[in-house]
Amino acid sequence: MQLGVIGLGRMGGDITRRLMKDGHRCVVFDRDAAAVGRLGDDGAGVARDLADLVRQLEPPRAVWVMLPAGAPTEDTIAALAGLLSAGDTVIDGGNTFYKDDVRRAKALREKGLTYVDVGTSGGVWGLARGYCLMIGGDKSVVDRLDPIFRTLAPGAGDIPRTQRPDDADPRAVQGYIHTGPVGSGHFVKMVHNGIEYGLMQAYAEGFDILKNRGREGLPEDERFELNLSDIAEVWRRGSVVSSWLLDLTAQALAGDAALAKFTGAVADSGEGRWTIEAAIEEAVPADVLAAALFARFRSREEHTFGEKLLSAMRFGFGGHVEGPPA
Amino acid sequence: MQLGVIGLGRMGGDITRRLMKDGHRCVVFDRDAAAVGRLGDDGAGVARDLADLVRQLEPPRAVWVMLPAGAPTEDTIAALAGLLSAGDTVIDGGNTFYKDDVRRAKALREKGLTYVDVGTSGGVWGLARGYCLMIGGDKSVVDRLDPIFRTLAPGAGDIPRTQRPDDADPRAVQGYIHTGPVGSGHFVKMVHNGIEYGLMQAYAEGFDILKNRGREGLPEDERFELNLSDIAEVWRRGSVVSSWLLDLTAQALAGDAALAKFTGAVADSGEGRWTIEAAIEEAVPADVLAAALFARFRSREEHTFGEKLLSAMRFGFGGHVEGPPA
Amino acid sequence: MQLGVIGLGRMGGDITRRLMKDGHRCVVFDRDAAAVGRLGDDGAGVARDLADLVRQLEPPRAVWVMLPAGAPTEDTIAALAGLLSAGDTVIDGGNTFYKDDVRRAKALREKGLTYVDVGTSGGVWGLARGYCLMIGGDKSVVDRLDPIFRTLAPGAGDIPRTQRPDDADPRAVQGYIHTGPVGSGHFVKMVHNGIEYGLMQAYAEGFDILKNRGREGLPEDERFELNLSDIAEVWRRGSVVSSWLLDLTAQALAGDAALAKFTGAVADSGEGRWTIEAAIEEAVPADVLAAALFARFRSREEHTFGEKLLSAMRFGFGGHVEGPPA
Amino acid sequence: MQLGVIGLGRMGGDITRRLMKDGHRCVVFDRDAAAVGRLGDDGAGVARDLADLVRQLEPPRAVWVMLPAGAPTEDTIAALAGLLSAGDTVIDGGNTFYKDDVRRAKALREKGLTYVDVGTSGGVWGLARGYCLMIGGDKSVVDRLDPIFRTLAPGAGDIPRTQRPDDADPRAVQGYIHTGPVGSGHFVKMVHNGIEYGLMQAYAEGFDILKNRGREGLPEDERFELNLSDIAEVWRRGSVVSSWLLDLTAQALAGDAALAKFTGAVADSGEGRWTIEAAIEEAVPADVLAAALFARFRSREEHTFGEKLLSAMRFGFGGHVEGPPA
Repeated sequence: MQLGVIGLGRMGGDITRRLMKDGHRCVVFDRDAAAVGRLGDDGAGVARDLADLVRQLEPPRAVWVMLPAGAPTEDTIAALAGLLSAGDTVIDGGNTFYKDDVRRAKALREKGLTYVDVGTSGGVWGLARGYCLMIGGDKSVVDRLDPIFRTLAPGAGDIPRTQRPDDADPRAVQGYIHTGPVGSGHFVKMVHNGIEYGLMQAYAEGFDILKNRGREGLPEDERFELNLSDIAEVWRRGSVVSSWLLDLTAQALAGDAALAKFTGAVADSGEGRWTIEAAIEEAVPADVLAAALFARFRSREEHTFGEKLLSAMRFGFGGHVEGPPA
Repeated sequence: MQLGVIGLGRMGGDITRRLMKDGHRCVVFDRDAAAVGRLGDDGAGVARDLADLVRQLEPPRAVWVMLPAGAPTEDTIAALAGLLSAGDTVIDGGNTFYKDDVRRAKALREKGLTYVDVGTSGGVWGLARGYCLMIGGDKSVVDRLDPIFRTLAPGAGDIPRTQRPDDADPRAVQGYIHTGPVGSGHFVKMVHNGIEYGLMQAYAEGFDILKNRGREGLPEDERFELNLSDIAEVWRRGSVVSSWLLDLTAQALAGDAALAKFTGAVADSGEGRWTIEAAIEEAVPADVLAAALFARFRSREEHTFGEKLLSAMRFGFGGHVEGPPA
Repeated sequence: MQLGVIGLGRMGGDITRRLMKDGHRCVVFDRDAAAVGRLGDDGAGVARDLADLVRQLEPPRAVWVMLPAGAPTEDTIAALAGLLSAGDTVIDGGNTFYKDDVRRAKALREKGLTYVDVGTSGGVWGLARGYCLMIGGDKSVVDRLDPIFRTLAPGAGDIPRTQRPDDADPRAVQGYIHTGPVGSGHFVKMVHNGIEYGLMQAYAEGFDILKNRGREGLPEDERFELNLSDIAEVWRRGSVVSSWLLDLTAQALAGDAALAKFTGAVADSGEGRWTIEAAIEEAVPADVLAAALFARFRSREEHTFGEKLLSAMRFGFGGHVEGPPA
Repeated sequence: MQLGVIGLGRMGGDITRRLMKDGHRCVVFDRDAAAVGRLGDDGAGVARDLADLVRQLEPPRAVWVMLPAGAPTEDTIAALAGLLSAGDTVIDGGNTFYKDDVRRAKALREKGLTYVDVGTSGGVWGLARGYCLMIGGDKSVVDRLDPIFRTLAPGAGDIPRTQRPDDADPRAVQGYIHTGPVGSGHFVKMVHNGIEYGLMQAYAEGFDILKNRGREGLPEDERFELNLSDIAEVWRRGSVVSSWLLDLTAQALAGDAALAKFTGAVADSGEGRWTIEAAIEEAVPADVLAAALFARFRSREEHTFGEKLLSAMRFGFGGHVEGPPA
């Protein structure tokens, strides 16, 4: 079917390509004309601006916005709201905060427009592997757009089948689901990323413990120089901790077991933060997910003010001057 | 080749079966005669006691001990030490603390015996999937026993190949590795389980947040009744959090999304605890792995004394009586 | 000076009493007529409603609102805004979220009203000990209201003097400070409570470890039945952990070292939660404060869904049935 | 009474001085002759070596060992064991691991010697304030040495009295207690230090959040430049978080609110680590105490290997290159 796509970064560009490969017709816009041109070369209809994009689509239109969360998405959707007609649909495929979805959908509804929020997982691998989609919105709209979602999703592949009840949603096995009302798609994707932080930190701490087993000062016969690359590789087979993140870890360690090209200043994005806020709002203990987030905060500082205060207190009660551990 | 196996619980029994299926000859013993009998029916040589088992093996002998860590393993190995001859090998395939390995190997070495510690992952799935093996010990002994390990390991299977350097240990791809000197096999397995706790807790917290998004009191349009079974299933395809633990989660939730048959009192075993102790010994921060362990401790208590003390302090400074949150 | 006080719960009532004892004139209102009557008996001017209260005060008026955060405070201040005149001041002495202060002050400013937010610590002890005040708002207004704050504050007392620079704010030593613009008073009080949670949890965990040193199963000569009451008492003198919270702990344990009258379901209020959200907003790691909050969440559940999921996964990979720890 | 003191560092020296000021007779030894000389000038009997020290004391002797935990203490006590006579007592006043106490006491008992472990809190303030003492050992010996402990302890001072039952141990109010059998004194002191880490980290995180409220990028009217020195000072009066550690914090911040002379690399000693291990041994959740310890570990690293691995995974799944947070 027909789809407008706004935002042709890596994600938006690849989504468009995957859709066109499966026969859908895309009309695209990005403020980077070169990006638009590249997609045009690949067969997309190109638009000069938002109005032009809307004009090239037949009603009821569907426009997929794939922009950074916050102002870029907000402003674009506001502009689209003034250009689209009743019955049209805005799809936010980015990493929007779910409460913004709820607010926006309410505003659009007053103009007869519908809103669908799609949590999209897949990263640089999505073009080839497909995108895991978590979709929030009205059932009728989500159903109408099903061909789009089906194409983008990874499909069942050769992943072992789970024994599921007969009335289970068959879409889940294809790699996409309708999660519920507006906002729920991004909510589920947000928690997905929160879990991702926790999983990553669990591996990070484990490999750190393995790495430091070779450190000076340990008893000689309890000190091991371990081959982290082999360990990651062997755990991929028959072990309880096998995962896609472990596959990536094995690849990284096979390339350079010292990971020398990375400094270790780790960025975080909204989802990890919002997950903790959601946990707090629900009064759910989330020790691991919070610790994973805080580890990233800490990784970006040389020292925190709190650490200086610890040293100041130690000096105050014990006359301790800073130095290596006693 | 020939192997003695002591301890015919689920793990020991299945290991023996997997070995015999591949043509190895096993002589088995367990203090449960019925277990011995069942393995005998399956083709194993049966022993009346440890001495009998030793007698039935040709030197240089190898005996795989697959018993609960602690006293059962300790006592059995001590008894074996008095029965075996110089050049024989004791393999501890259980969940032994790596410092016990180091100590035991030293004692056995004085009698000319060698010791190999094998961290064994696989659980109830090992017979079919194979066992991921992390092997510590002298190179010559580990090499001599290679046929045993190769049979037990899962093999390369259809898991996508990592691009690894030409001189990488080819065994890792087959699902087993020689980790280094005695103790290092169980050390690596220990950290494996520590990571496992962290991964599990990350999923647990994430699904808890999803589950509680339907709880009373949240703003009506930010409250979602989410289908956890569908969510687990969809994440298995194309998402960053796909893993074998997620596969198991999807199976469990497909069976009963409320998990009503579980109370939530979660056991822990030595490895999760020792991992934290190793982190402390190495001065490695392990916030996530520790939080995962503590969550299990807490899960087994109705209330902690610490919680009562919190209430007592709140009563002391604010006159607060216990009740639902303000 | 003259002050209106709205909200005569424990805090509002005691604040009024402390002010009147020092010669200030208070006009009070509460929707509970009995509370109003009691303060009237103690010498306060009594008001029938908000309009009556405003009428009884001379401009420029100052009205202290001491109500639960959220709707009660919000609605009362909105009503006051319609009754007060330019130059009058609303003081929010409750536990308001600092972002609400900022928003409200902006709205009141448009009507020529000023707004002061006062974080008030003191609980049931404030009437006698005085209240530690953290005050946000315009300098001129805070200065004008100084007599009120000075009366409410504890005063220097016999607490040992810190050597402070000559230009340090002399009010801090008296137990009150002007923290900065509107919102900053409640912000500082919020972090105060966040720290309070962390301190309390540190004691709670420590005493829990002491308590459980007597538990069955520990090696007999490493198992101690400790007298927690004596320990809390002795730490009050000459130790690094002495504090007012420890004083309260000692009192509670002296009364009943088993704390049998407390169940251990621990409430939390907004400040502890908002502190974590502020940390996240600032990208400051706050592992201890977050863990302290989560411990309270967990204390109110019999079991979490996450714990059930852990058990389900353990059953999935190991056939483990729930029970006591292995 | 008479006491031998071995180890004349800050703690050992001050303890000797406090004892002599109260009329006790001390014979001292340290391998640093200058330290011995200084105490001799202050009135102590000086010993050339351990044998000389033993010779100068009348039986039943009591020798206080105040050396770094581990080898220095271990070796000294072993040497003393060969010099002392049945009925003599060794007091370990250092920071010994309680399991070492239990082991040592058993060995000494075979020679008719008794052993007392004294957890000693007080740091650089002890000479003036007195030392909070937690004493493990046989009742008869602890009672015999009571004059020593009474002198070292802070005494009741002007700290408000807790209402305690009539049969409560009167020593607690004087600042020392008999905690139970050998090992329990150091166990209680160990937990004391574990709590200390948690308290310190709670303040550290809170002040970090206050400090960073002034950071760039926050909404202008929610951004506050807070005066940390005033805040610490005001909290000392009438607030729930007042404590001796807060007093020290106020002093440090009054001197330099930026704490510029501290880098923030924070040492840790055995007690904080052993507290977590004790919690694990008892299956007590200790999230806050563990997080406080891990924060110190992290403070001493530029980056952890785990952080590099996080970056490597992010690069693997998202092509993310390291940089400031998105």
